[in-house]
Amino acid sequence: MTKEFFKVTDLGDALELRFGFKRLAQEEIPIYESTGRILAEDIESDVDLPDFSRAIMDGFAVRAASTFGASDGNPAYLNVPRAIAMGEIPSFSIGPGEAARISTGGMLPEGADSVVMIEHTDAIDETTIEVYKSVAPGQHMVAIGEDIEKDRTILFRGQQLRPQETGLLAAFGRSSVRVFRKPVIGIISTGDEIVPVHESPAVGKIRDINAYTLAGQIIQAGGIPRQFGIVKDDYDALLALCTHGLEQSDMLLVSGGSSVGMRDYTVEVLSAIPDADLLLHGISISPGKPTILAKIADKAFWGLPGHVVSAMVVFHAVVLPFIDHVGGLEPAYHRRPACMATLNRSVASSQGRVDYIRVKLIEENDNFTAEPVLGKSGLINTMLRADGLVKIDKHTEGLDENTQVKVLLFT
Amino acid sequence: MTKEFFKVTDLGDALELRFGFKRLAQEEIPIYESTGRILAEDIESDVDLPDFSRAIMDGFAVRAASTFGASDGNPAYLNVPRAIAMGEIPSFSIGPGEAARISTGGMLPEGADSVVMIEHTDAIDETTIEVYKSVAPGQHMVAIGEDIEKDRTILFRGQQLRPQETGLLAAFGRSSVRVFRKPVIGIISTGDEIVPVHESPAVGKIRDINAYTLAGQIIQAGGIPRQFGIVKDDYDALLALCTHGLEQSDMLLVSGGSSVGMRDYTVEVLSAIPDADLLLHGISISPGKPTILAKIADKAFWGLPGHVVSAMVVFHAVVLPFIDHVGGLEPAYHRRPACMATLNRSVASSQGRVDYIRVKLIEENDNFTAEPVLGKSGLINTMLRADGLVKIDKHTEGLDENTQVKVLLFT
Repeated sequence: MTKEFFKVTDLGDALELRFGFKRLAQEEIPIYESTGRILAEDIESDVDLPDFSRAIMDGFAVRAASTFGASDGNPAYLNVPRAIAMGEIPSFSIGPGEAARISTGGMLPEGADSVVMIEHTDAIDETTIEVYKSVAPGQHMVAIGEDIEKDRTILFRGQQLRPQETGLLAAFGRSSVRVFRKPVIGIISTGDEIVPVHESPAVGKIRDINAYTLAGQIIQAGGIPRQFGIVKDDYDALLALCTHGLEQSDMLLVSGGSSVGMRDYTVEVLSAIPDADLLLHGISISPGKPTILAKIADKAFWGLPGHVVSAMVVFHAVVLPFIDHVGGLEPAYHRRPACMATLNRSVASSQGRVDYIRVKLIEENDNFTAEPVLGKSGLINTMLRADGLVKIDKHTEGLDENTQVKVLLFT
Repeated sequence: MTKEFFKVTDLGDALELRFGFKRLAQEEIPIYESTGRILAEDIESDVDLPDFSRAIMDGFAVRAASTFGASDGNPAYLNVPRAIAMGEIPSFSIGPGEAARISTGGMLPEGADSVVMIEHTDAIDETTIEVYKSVAPGQHMVAIGEDIEKDRTILFRGQQLRPQETGLLAAFGRSSVRVFRKPVIGIISTGDEIVPVHESPAVGKIRDINAYTLAGQIIQAGGIPRQFGIVKDDYDALLALCTHGLEQSDMLLVSGGSSVGMRDYTVEVLSAIPDADLLLHGISISPGKPTILAKIADKAFWGLPGHVVSAMVVFHAVVLPFIDHVGGLEPAYHRRPACMATLNRSVASSQGRVDYIRVKLIEENDNFTAEPVLGKSGLINTMLRADGLVKIDKHTEGLDENTQVKVLLFT
């Protein structure tokens, strides 16, 4: 027996490996379903938005100069010969001392450069109003191209679409859009002691938890989980199920195998699969050191630790960036929610590896406090109590109480 | 014409109105699909987790006392007559000076109270090991009930399920779970100037954006959006579509109608629908003041502003808490991502109303800076540039530069 079982890879080096994997294929989808998806094309503005001057208040289209100096005590009197209906193209123009009734969304006539809010006016007679407040040019209206100018790249390949980006696609008449396909991610659980959720485990056995935590994480990552079931510590069965799982998915997560025997099986299976390239065998993170990554037919094959916390942390810290990469997300557009918080007790950490600690967030006095959740990485209750993870850099020996830390939030 | 068109409701009072709406029905779903859903039942632990003492490292099950004082220079020598297979119930017990080979996940024999990591041992012969490091009782193992104790309420009705809660359900053999049904939320856009996304708008008209931004927000809120199309400023058409929309959904969002005429139509339509109860007509927030809420057959009917930013902000600030409520989410379990940030310029605000300002987040030196995104509420580009919203309390006249603010993050 030796004291070190495998040579670990630095976390940063492990993450670089993702760029060796190809992006997934693209597909055209209705924009209705596009929120959360990753754009596979640049989007150009082919018109100005708006392409006409629009009122954004109910009131009167005017020349701002006609209202200069107007106040409660000294109103401006304007002549209002006409009104503009919604969707109408006004055929007249507004001169000095003139106004036209306009509703929000209406098109400003030529000559008008602003809108007086109806609240700041009073009707004197059928065709005359008093204005109590001056407006500046451009006020209460949107000029041509003021929102988005024509012939610009407005959305970029690799960007994740939020509701507002989906709305922008609608504004430019894109009823469908090209996005990257959602990655299908297979899940296999291994271990003689693991039984399916619907079975009552005999003494010494436990139900399969990882298949469900990982499925949830895959859904949150924008992927499609596919469970392939449980395989015992059996080389032939593991090889058969891994081969099947790889055929059916874009990436495969084999969890369990945290025992040395199981890890050996996993590595043996990898060596039996043609073209399998073992990229790493151990990562310098805690929890999650006994992680395996191989590349098989341009698909990532992961051997994840069996402990539920370790598997979840490795997913957050390592697997997720790979999913993002193959799913087309550009690092500049990552929007994983995070917050800053004050650590409320010191935590120890080992130099030379990256530590992820679970923390609970407490909000008080316009500040977040991060309280470390202590507990073994086999205990799911620590994840139930935690709101997120704090990463402790490999060059750091630990964090002192009151350090400001960045918390990667669980959602 | 008057200077005030309607009496506005305080934001806090508006939000209280949600408790007047019934929660949605419940449904039983496979836990596989449960991440993100709201629990409709309390979950009890019916067994200890684990229900046997498990090793969480590969090594040797021992009595910790047998290793006390062990070091590199002064190893402890232990007798190892047996090994424990995965899933096996050991039929023997461990006495002082004894050890049994065990793998991660294996069941500890009687008498053993800890596990020595294999890395801290060397084999002397077939049945003897040297131990170089002492262990404490409980180390490298999980005791019965150490993760979750039996007969506790472990998850609560009204809680949103994350991957770890889904995993916990699996651990307790729950292959299905009772959750609240997802709210179906109808969307109607109104206005003579609005054309569908697939049409090329004539001058003076614009495409329907709100139907898409709102659909995206509904999906992010855990609901199911249903678009009912566009209705012109026409009382009969609006009444017919609203009646149909209310029948087909749990809540209805009628956007547009930001012009006074359209608002009048909306209120007229409400008065024509039997049992419609107008709950509010204007909220003291900005943007988003001209918001209407009615209760019809226990469903919320919203009249939202037509400006895209206003509609999105009202959705975040007001509609979302109503969706959460009818969808069963208890306020204590809200996990909307937020962060603290330092405002990098002062912003003005009016006392007596709540202001929502859009901000861009800049991360530097372990701190987030929030930069206000200025721009009219008709401009979608301001939402594209923003990462979240900052709420300015109604009693505040504005925020000074360098104020610490809470940012509600867009996702």
